[in-house]
Amino acid sequence: MRDFLPAEVKAREKVLSTVRGVFESYGFAPLETPAIERLEILQGKYGEEGDRLIFKIAQRGARATEEADLALRYDLTVPLARVVAEYGDRTGRIFKRYQVAPVWRADRPGRGRYREFYQCDVDVVGPEFGLADAETILVLTDALAALGLKGFEVRLNSRKVLRGLIESYGIDPARETDVLVALDKFDKIGEAGVAEELRERGLAAATPLLAGVSGPEDELRHRLGTSEVGRSGLDEVDRLIDLAGPLVSDGAVAFSPVLARGLSYYTGPIFEVYVEGSTSAISSGGRYDGLVGMFAGRSIPAVGGSLGIERIIPLVSRPEEGVVSPARVFLAVWDAAARPDALATASALRAAGIPTEVYLGGERMGEQLGYASSRGIPYAVLRGPKEQEQGVVTLRDLQTREQTAVPEGDLVAVLRDRLSTP
Amino acid sequence: MRDFLPAEVKAREKVLSTVRGVFESYGFAPLETPAIERLEILQGKYGEEGDRLIFKIAQRGARATEEADLALRYDLTVPLARVVAEYGDRTGRIFKRYQVAPVWRADRPGRGRYREFYQCDVDVVGPEFGLADAETILVLTDALAALGLKGFEVRLNSRKVLRGLIESYGIDPARETDVLVALDKFDKIGEAGVAEELRERGLAAATPLLAGVSGPEDELRHRLGTSEVGRSGLDEVDRLIDLAGPLVSDGAVAFSPVLARGLSYYTGPIFEVYVEGSTSAISSGGRYDGLVGMFAGRSIPAVGGSLGIERIIPLVSRPEEGVVSPARVFLAVWDAAARPDALATASALRAAGIPTEVYLGGERMGEQLGYASSRGIPYAVLRGPKEQEQGVVTLRDLQTREQTAVPEGDLVAVLRDRLSTP
Repeated sequence: MRDFLPAEVKAREKVLSTVRGVFESYGFAPLETPAIERLEILQGKYGEEGDRLIFKIAQRGARATEEADLALRYDLTVPLARVVAEYGDRTGRIFKRYQVAPVWRADRPGRGRYREFYQCDVDVVGPEFGLADAETILVLTDALAALGLKGFEVRLNSRKVLRGLIESYGIDPARETDVLVALDKFDKIGEAGVAEELRERGLAAATPLLAGVSGPEDELRHRLGTSEVGRSGLDEVDRLIDLAGPLVSDGAVAFSPVLARGLSYYTGPIFEVYVEGSTSAISSGGRYDGLVGMFAGRSIPAVGGSLGIERIIPLVSRPEEGVVSPARVFLAVWDAAARPDALATASALRAAGIPTEVYLGGERMGEQLGYASSRGIPYAVLRGPKEQEQGVVTLRDLQTREQTAVPEGDLVAVLRDRLSTP
Repeated sequence: MRDFLPAEVKAREKVLSTVRGVFESYGFAPLETPAIERLEILQGKYGEEGDRLIFKIAQRGARATEEADLALRYDLTVPLARVVAEYGDRTGRIFKRYQVAPVWRADRPGRGRYREFYQCDVDVVGPEFGLADAETILVLTDALAALGLKGFEVRLNSRKVLRGLIESYGIDPARETDVLVALDKFDKIGEAGVAEELRERGLAAATPLLAGVSGPEDELRHRLGTSEVGRSGLDEVDRLIDLAGPLVSDGAVAFSPVLARGLSYYTGPIFEVYVEGSTSAISSGGRYDGLVGMFAGRSIPAVGGSLGIERIIPLVSRPEEGVVSPARVFLAVWDAAARPDALATASALRAAGIPTEVYLGGERMGEQLGYASSRGIPYAVLRGPKEQEQGVVTLRDLQTREQTAVPEGDLVAVLRDRLSTP
């Protein structure tokens, strides 16, 4: 759990606002769902490990010993599925939405991982496989490019390819999830590690599949040709490479048969995006044609993806700390008698569109100017007894410390001029 | 708990963004704290009723029967106090922050009340009574004015006035909280109702105080003159009326001795803002010089206030429903062969700064145009086989249904022109 002090809020907000801008340029519209969902909505959607990490909310009052029936959202996809089931008449047959919001997981937090973190999702609910899958990849890589990242490698597979392989290697289809959970670790623990894990899970018979996914692609394609679902998955991969490949800015889309993805709800194409210099994926997604139907009671196809925004922010923005004031002008204060006057001056400057901060502490000038400088405010306006007598204000540049006497009536014009030419 | 569909998100965001703009024009900087706090941080800060409404988070794993040790934030003020205690070296001796974020209360939700709702707070931590108190009132009324609200009545009192009265009527000072809790209902249940409630609480001796707060102001002032704390409270009220009164846009600040406010942590001036036609306050706040010290271990004065943003939003924005697309141009699709081309055209339009949505469903033109119209997109671009042959696109105004043939090379220029002149 983290607190974000103002400078950090500003830096994060700049990144998120760029991302929202790209999402909206594709016609994705914002959805907001509550932090709290009914527990039964969330349970059974994320696999065994996921279920364990759901934050449950204790029942209140006399029956506090009963089971929790509410929980904090674990991701933004299951709430989307619930919304479509609940408001389908209003979201329409095709619903393109984005959501940038915190989610919560009762994880033991590791380096760079938190129990509250932002997710940043785009999803298209309604369309079958095709343009929607391509667009999901494109909007995410475009967002990464807008943040200044370069050199994208989109690794693409399909759950149907993996199902085709399981079929063609004669592995028990009931063990598909176990095979995928093991295969998902290929990048981390390598082929030998996955083989070991398969054996531990009593799936020694599945190890030949590893040679298949990591071997020559033409052999793999030949083998997939023997399975209907495998052929269909391969066709999806090829069509997506044709559709999205040429348009991914500064990068390429490539078939990656070892890619499995952890979440249990994927049914078709799945992808991960890597960027120059990153060893783990910074974006991922896929098609999940079964999930919405679990709530809607009828099959509704969907595809979506996510930016790993907490990993991306440190890559694209300099970490800042502490407090920066949004004000551009600082108004120093004198004795109590002059205070109504300081408030009135500040009010006039704000009315002219100039964000102005009045000092709310004591009267010592050194302390006042020190505060203003530490907050990054560029100009201070001083209007002491001497200035009042002369009908001027002293305008101080807080960086150069240069001071100019400005006639009271000219202050707005002078400040506007200074602030528009940095 | 509510879901906000895109049109509603947009309407809410417009209101919140206006409010943030006014807060920042005063130099308030954004803070973000996590949704989850340690339970001990929250407990004992909101009074008995408040404590009961805190959403507690169940412990996970084997020790699930133990007491909860985490909770959802109940307001934004206690987390601020914790942050100042934790990061005081970085937030500085004066910390002006705003936070606009959801809070959670395990309340039985009534009409227009929700268990998850947004709070919208400004606070100044550090300064003693004075300019900071005036600025709190001014920034909130300015924000209300920026939203188009008019006719503000700022009701002002001080907890010191109330303490002075308790003293001067010889009421047991240990019963202060009970007196305030009863008095806080004055507006709802009237003088007779409060008197009844005081008697029920065994405070019949306190009923003369009611005649004092609702009687002639000069008598009240005279009585307060007999108590040191009462005089000090009256002086605060008068100084704030002088400081803030003249600058409240379209409204006035007036002494309101019946005002008590529910929260237990206030120590000095307290206020509520009413707007023409509203029967309950839409903004409120006050000074709480003891709260930050509960975490920091040393006394740190503070003053702040809040907009009742959930009540304000329906007053200032028309309720909208459903989905509006952020795209300005809709690209219809033809057969599968033309799809890479549609994606490329959309990509080129976006690169030119024109938000463009490609249809991701089927090919029926009526369905496509119906979708685009229902999403509020103003223009559709049609590029079928006939158009491709002629090197043109058909540009359709989705409101007038007027269609124009535009040479492919001119599309960006024509769209820019149309979109800049609504």
